[in-house]
Amino acid sequence: MAPHKIILDCDPGVDDAIAILLALASPQEIELLGITTVAGNVPLENTARNARRICTLAGRQDIPVYAGCSRPMLEAEGRRSKVHGNDGLGNVTLPEPDFALQEEHAVDYLIRAIHAASGEITLCPIGPMTNIALAIVKDPSIAPKIKQLVFMGGAAFCPGNSSPVAEFNIYVDPWAAHVVLSAGIPQVMFGLDVTLQAKINSNYLDALQQVSPLLASATAMMRSYGASDPCLHDPCVIAWLIEPSLFSGVEGDISVSYHDDIHRGQTVVAVKPRHLADNQTNITVMTEVDKPRLLKMLAERLSRL
Amino acid sequence: MAPHKIILDCDPGVDDAIAILLALASPQEIELLGITTVAGNVPLENTARNARRICTLAGRQDIPVYAGCSRPMLEAEGRRSKVHGNDGLGNVTLPEPDFALQEEHAVDYLIRAIHAASGEITLCPIGPMTNIALAIVKDPSIAPKIKQLVFMGGAAFCPGNSSPVAEFNIYVDPWAAHVVLSAGIPQVMFGLDVTLQAKINSNYLDALQQVSPLLASATAMMRSYGASDPCLHDPCVIAWLIEPSLFSGVEGDISVSYHDDIHRGQTVVAVKPRHLADNQTNITVMTEVDKPRLLKMLAERLSRL
Amino acid sequence: MAPHKIILDCDPGVDDAIAILLALASPQEIELLGITTVAGNVPLENTARNARRICTLAGRQDIPVYAGCSRPMLEAEGRRSKVHGNDGLGNVTLPEPDFALQEEHAVDYLIRAIHAASGEITLCPIGPMTNIALAIVKDPSIAPKIKQLVFMGGAAFCPGNSSPVAEFNIYVDPWAAHVVLSAGIPQVMFGLDVTLQAKINSNYLDALQQVSPLLASATAMMRSYGASDPCLHDPCVIAWLIEPSLFSGVEGDISVSYHDDIHRGQTVVAVKPRHLADNQTNITVMTEVDKPRLLKMLAERLSRL
Amino acid sequence: MAPHKIILDCDPGVDDAIAILLALASPQEIELLGITTVAGNVPLENTARNARRICTLAGRQDIPVYAGCSRPMLEAEGRRSKVHGNDGLGNVTLPEPDFALQEEHAVDYLIRAIHAASGEITLCPIGPMTNIALAIVKDPSIAPKIKQLVFMGGAAFCPGNSSPVAEFNIYVDPWAAHVVLSAGIPQVMFGLDVTLQAKINSNYLDALQQVSPLLASATAMMRSYGASDPCLHDPCVIAWLIEPSLFSGVEGDISVSYHDDIHRGQTVVAVKPRHLADNQTNITVMTEVDKPRLLKMLAERLSRL
Repeated sequence: MAPHKIILDCDPGVDDAIAILLALASPQEIELLGITTVAGNVPLENTARNARRICTLAGRQDIPVYAGCSRPMLEAEGRRSKVHGNDGLGNVTLPEPDFALQEEHAVDYLIRAIHAASGEITLCPIGPMTNIALAIVKDPSIAPKIKQLVFMGGAAFCPGNSSPVAEFNIYVDPWAAHVVLSAGIPQVMFGLDVTLQAKINSNYLDALQQVSPLLASATAMMRSYGASDPCLHDPCVIAWLIEPSLFSGVEGDISVSYHDDIHRGQTVVAVKPRHLADNQTNITVMTEVDKPRLLKMLAERLSRL
Repeated sequence: MAPHKIILDCDPGVDDAIAILLALASPQEIELLGITTVAGNVPLENTARNARRICTLAGRQDIPVYAGCSRPMLEAEGRRSKVHGNDGLGNVTLPEPDFALQEEHAVDYLIRAIHAASGEITLCPIGPMTNIALAIVKDPSIAPKIKQLVFMGGAAFCPGNSSPVAEFNIYVDPWAAHVVLSAGIPQVMFGLDVTLQAKINSNYLDALQQVSPLLASATAMMRSYGASDPCLHDPCVIAWLIEPSLFSGVEGDISVSYHDDIHRGQTVVAVKPRHLADNQTNITVMTEVDKPRLLKMLAERLSRL
Repeated sequence: MAPHKIILDCDPGVDDAIAILLALASPQEIELLGITTVAGNVPLENTARNARRICTLAGRQDIPVYAGCSRPMLEAEGRRSKVHGNDGLGNVTLPEPDFALQEEHAVDYLIRAIHAASGEITLCPIGPMTNIALAIVKDPSIAPKIKQLVFMGGAAFCPGNSSPVAEFNIYVDPWAAHVVLSAGIPQVMFGLDVTLQAKINSNYLDALQQVSPLLASATAMMRSYGASDPCLHDPCVIAWLIEPSLFSGVEGDISVSYHDDIHRGQTVVAVKPRHLADNQTNITVMTEVDKPRLLKMLAERLSRL
Repeated sequence: MAPHKIILDCDPGVDDAIAILLALASPQEIELLGITTVAGNVPLENTARNARRICTLAGRQDIPVYAGCSRPMLEAEGRRSKVHGNDGLGNVTLPEPDFALQEEHAVDYLIRAIHAASGEITLCPIGPMTNIALAIVKDPSIAPKIKQLVFMGGAAFCPGNSSPVAEFNIYVDPWAAHVVLSAGIPQVMFGLDVTLQAKINSNYLDALQQVSPLLASATAMMRSYGASDPCLHDPCVIAWLIEPSLFSGVEGDISVSYHDDIHRGQTVVAVKPRHLADNQTNITVMTEVDKPRLLKMLAERLSRL
């Protein structure tokens, strides 16, 4: 089977970095066409730099990296995360990027690439969805040409992390999430419902750390990251593209609450039979992961780099 | 220890009926001062009749029953539940009430009783909170004289049943819930978080059914009620007053979403440390029940009647 | 023609006081059954006292005065006005009430009086509508027995005074206004659209002041009241009952914005043809007053007292 | 004095067409750098065609015309106006465009032009503000480089035309209006408050019609347009740049209601002293026009073409 042609839209971010590495480690299943970056966990300057630092670490300076939006759609200043360190990658020693950022704006790259690929592109937003939303508003004709959207974000059936009801990526730009998730694109959601199950522990990191200098850096990032047992939020998206049988979920109908009140960024998902009389669904929401197989696969793949 | 002096504010409703019976079966722990009824699962006429049918069934025509509000605070027509049958008690054969409804409106009874009891009354709303809210607006001086509020309602950390985010009792009159839950009364919430764990099965009902004619009626009601394994939503409130060690929960800060939109009736609970920086809490939200002990206690108590 | 049987629901307030006096001065057209008071311009204690001070001033201790709600429906603390002085009547020297407040709560009086009068009562709310809303929620069967609602409140086609979009009476308890104005009662609105035209000036007050000691007091109140040229907001309601030809308006469909945001208390009125395709109207919104005739009539009537 | 360097962002639209003609007729005061078009009164294809039809009519094929956004920011389908005819210019016989649309997207042109002009550009949106909002989100660094924003849109102190509270341009894309009007750009608003005063009548059109074939076409458009006495909404923006003394207004603080409810597109303006304690204003809202002078100037200018 041909690999998935993906564009990774991200705000690295430690778990974004692991997602990039997992994609690069899986060329049979994933063809990484380009990386677009957005303001999110850290400002745009950092995410654009960090994406290239990770590619440099992996020796993949051939991956084109595009900087996109530096603010959410309806707010002049975005919210930031505190768990990724000042630089966004846990302040771990990493190489500086040794290749240039593309000059094209991420929004324009997305439009151009989607038109060029005739329906073959899988978009993988693992940060706020500002870039993709702006691309859709600027050129609505791209929406039907996107094969699918596989994203990390939201919390359908469990509490949030940025507020009692909202997950960070959606909370930062709920307006963009509304635009994207209502655009009629086939979509698969990896929200906190499932990604909070993908925790790793110190023993796991101890073993991985020995494998290579690259994994020494990667595990150092993960150790720096928030709680004692860090979650592999973003890598779930890539892991599912590699091996869908790792995850299971439910079909539902999603709407994003985008008013700037207590419900900002909440992802309300109606599921059948109780709340969806007519069985009209627009999303697959992942709710379960086979954690042992996920961790085994991740270790195997990252060890190839 | 003196028994809890309680007023049960209810909309029977099958599980309300079981809650009344459990209270009547536990005179050492519970002194049931009165029952107030409200429109909810079924219209006010039915809830006022059903409360007295249950008291009649239990031979407790001495319990004063007061009818209250027939509509929610901000809507002319309330929403109804479908799982309690046309009459609200599963259309099971039950005695007709052989005692009269009190003439006093439930709102006025609540105000009078709370003033008379000098801080000793525990209010137990297990339906929409319209009666209590109206009493507070009509006479705000009652709020500091209420000992505590122990209620069935809401869904803090799990999906709802009336909508993806809201539980029925709060959904029906979110405005009343807002008034009551923000009135500064010590409060304990039994929402779907915990009551969905209190499921009973057919074997349990088979055993209970044999005990007495009263339990034959009670189990018939429960069997008629919605799903195959009915939940003991409302009885949890009484069970906790009898034996607090059956339940455990968390401290949080609750707010009720009372706009008539997709979030209507949602109970947003912020818990520490992530979402409550200053540790200011206003509610105990129950999240766990020792189900075997709960069911054992319920069977023992109901068998006394 | 028989006089209008009215209950004046008010929060005196200087212009409320003038409205009371105008009603008392017009026995052929107005039969003032009772006065109910509510928290609004000043707290409930003051409005209950002020209504009786005005009746005492007019020698009408026979008018029953009932105290009602001390807070709005969904907020524990109401908003106050600053233009009526600390005591609510401009700190003008006035007699203390020499008759007692009725013991019955205004909400219960409203319910009782409306049932007793079989469809003949005109309700005249000239303050926040909390009392009437609570009466409707407590006993919805009164709504079809109210002949009409003639109220001061709102701003349909012009800016507000409590916010850029809201008038004070509606702003204080928009929830009550929503309940009352959507209850299906025939209704006539005297909002800022028309009442801001009913300004009086110093010359007018100079003449009135000479007439009697009572009018010396009344004009002193008006002079103390806010701007240089005080508006006769509340008296418009009574004036229209006396002489409808003084005013003209439009038919429309009103809805009250009752969320606690920038639109709190806004009265949105759709009028035909542009915004009301089906010509379904539920309110008459007054927009024009014949000011010279209004002022002449007011002076004549008040001079009778 | 050097002429104003302007970009006209429009959705022609009959009154947009007159605004273009007025700008072209006033080279001493107005340097029209470019025209950007947006979906609004009619779809984007029509507005891009109509802008060039008007330039062709005026023999000004040198004006670069850029097509922009075909939908509002947060909705897939925009709302349309019915008063401009199917084609957007009253179905009047007009020349087809004899020059090409620019290939660059209006959003990118705006960004490029604003950066190139170092603070000298006056933006004149006279349709929905989608293009300008998208430019700001895509490149926030342009906002401080915009000299001023002079726009037709909104209704601060009077009812709306698309709803009881909202004017069409803001109603169609309230999200864009929020982004643009909160961007810190010096701004002057020509809303319905003033533009409804700029009505013309049949006699005026009769005289204008005789002047030239171009004015025969322009007056035919105006006659086709909605009511008997058409309003010169959009031309007010250009007229003010030519002769500011024609208009007067107030300083205020504007916020745009961008939730999709009854207040969608409302422009709430707080003015001092009542609603703006601190005198912080962010907009000049025009409220009065010297209509005779405006009409005289318009006739003189258009007669030059």
